[in-house]
Amino acid sequence: MANPVLVEVKRGPLVESRHRGTIAVSDAEGRTVFALGDVAAPVFPRSAVKALQALPLIEQGAADRFGLNDEELALACASHSGEAAHVAGVERMLAKAGLGPSDLRCGAHWPVAQAAAAAVARSGAPTPLHNNCSGKHAGFLCVARAIGVDHAEYWHPEHPVQRLVQSVLEDFTGAALGEARCAIDGCSVPTWAVPLRNLAHGFAKFGTGRDISVERVRAAARLRHACANKPWYVAGTDRFCTDIMQLFGERVFVKTGAEGVYCAALPQQGLGIALKCDDGASRAAQAIMAAVIARFLPLAASERAALARFVAPTLRNWNSFEVGQIRMTDALR
Amino acid sequence: MANPVLVEVKRGPLVESRHRGTIAVSDAEGRTVFALGDVAAPVFPRSAVKALQALPLIEQGAADRFGLNDEELALACASHSGEAAHVAGVERMLAKAGLGPSDLRCGAHWPVAQAAAAAVARSGAPTPLHNNCSGKHAGFLCVARAIGVDHAEYWHPEHPVQRLVQSVLEDFTGAALGEARCAIDGCSVPTWAVPLRNLAHGFAKFGTGRDISVERVRAAARLRHACANKPWYVAGTDRFCTDIMQLFGERVFVKTGAEGVYCAALPQQGLGIALKCDDGASRAAQAIMAAVIARFLPLAASERAALARFVAPTLRNWNSFEVGQIRMTDALR
Repeated sequence: MANPVLVEVKRGPLVESRHRGTIAVSDAEGRTVFALGDVAAPVFPRSAVKALQALPLIEQGAADRFGLNDEELALACASHSGEAAHVAGVERMLAKAGLGPSDLRCGAHWPVAQAAAAAVARSGAPTPLHNNCSGKHAGFLCVARAIGVDHAEYWHPEHPVQRLVQSVLEDFTGAALGEARCAIDGCSVPTWAVPLRNLAHGFAKFGTGRDISVERVRAAARLRHACANKPWYVAGTDRFCTDIMQLFGERVFVKTGAEGVYCAALPQQGLGIALKCDDGASRAAQAIMAAVIARFLPLAASERAALARFVAPTLRNWNSFEVGQIRMTDALR
Repeated sequence: MANPVLVEVKRGPLVESRHRGTIAVSDAEGRTVFALGDVAAPVFPRSAVKALQALPLIEQGAADRFGLNDEELALACASHSGEAAHVAGVERMLAKAGLGPSDLRCGAHWPVAQAAAAAVARSGAPTPLHNNCSGKHAGFLCVARAIGVDHAEYWHPEHPVQRLVQSVLEDFTGAALGEARCAIDGCSVPTWAVPLRNLAHGFAKFGTGRDISVERVRAAARLRHACANKPWYVAGTDRFCTDIMQLFGERVFVKTGAEGVYCAALPQQGLGIALKCDDGASRAAQAIMAAVIARFLPLAASERAALARFVAPTLRNWNSFEVGQIRMTDALR
């Protein structure tokens, strides 16, 4: 069975492109309260679970020992745009743990933000600090230092840091993360495929603390608070995750992942959300997440208006002429 | 009916993303010799028909009058990467017609090529010359000058230049291009949606000259020859269209368009090819085009080997670790 078409991209009078996908919304008991498409199929969550990957940073005492502030904790959960303050923040995290940029093993890429990329081009070339995952990697390095293990191969699936991450992911998602579900992420750490409904359940638990140990509940709340307090550090200028968390504060935790994945928690509703666009398109995944938030979060009229530009964005060309629109299909209504 | 899944993107042991699409292969008489998906549905060809949009440049005498060489004719058919020689070539075309960069109405964007973008960032900001469509626009301006009309609004659907383009497209595709099928392209010129099988038929005619006037056949051959002779000017460094035409010379004319479209002509086989990835992904459209060429073009063993990296590209991460592969499904085998 094909997953349903969730998003249409219109150009002028016609639909030009279509995006299929899967959505799971779960409560903290693991009941799927809303589902579209095959929510039992395994999905690589990629960067959408960075907040879960960052939990050992709190739990192992690294955040306290190295005095990480909310900006730095948000960076540990971030897919940042490589803007100057992101890069400076990651460098600060590393310095607090007695390490430096040369310890990062995420690889280098140009900043996601065009203005930041141009600034880097003017002064040199991108480094691993500019990698959107550098904050997560700095967090892993802090954990390695805090638990007193060699940090050189902190990215390897067999390294104690990744074993801690794997255990956290299993605790939240209730899925067994074996080798048959393990692949390598863009930044070289392991990523494990999990059914979408388990991811949604995991984020309901992340938002509510249900069925999670007291220490872990406290750690999750600290990360959620840091991201709500410093949302710019989770993504950056004109980025969806930042804009949404700026808009809703602690009412919504949301995080993007590569290949069209989004996860979110609505703590007050006790709900977790996970979605995947079949073809990996982030333009569609973002619109779907906005629409799911609009459906499950009680909104003031002004909030609904603010969300509209994400649910149904207008497409403009290089001359800023309006050329089309992204819109939800009836499947989601 | 959903179009079939044509491409799977694997990560480690699992399929991470899937791309559906439509393929039409036609002979010059308009017989569809191969079809997958709904080939009767209208598709915006976008930049995939730039060679057809460039025909008035030859037919109206502009190419001869302004002494355009093969590099410049290839640029008129190009979605170029904004590299230095592309920009210089477009500036030359404009100068030959007594015009300059300020006459371009395509809008500005950063060069597609990362190295070129970095070079632009070091010296300033992108201009309309860097727009991937600037050669096409320079060609339109040359036509306006040659036919003696005001060139200021050469991009407008009602302008004589676009009327000439519309008439060429109708001649090749056999489709009536009315307002109900007209939208605005990224560079602000009109784009008309056409059934994919008509596009394939149009490119079979473009490659063979069947059912086309003698003057138009000659003009089409001149553009095909220019692109085969100077394929770097049709796209750029490490670009699919350039690499394929470098590999096959006049045996394959191929051109990409935005939102997952490709068109091609195999003149010796008398075939035209048109394809569209439902979701607009170019990574998938490119792999599909490589696979269709591999199926319909007789290949030497070395050519088949050279095509393999486009049919089933290996995916590497920021550390160059092999993380997955793009591969065709059985639908195309």
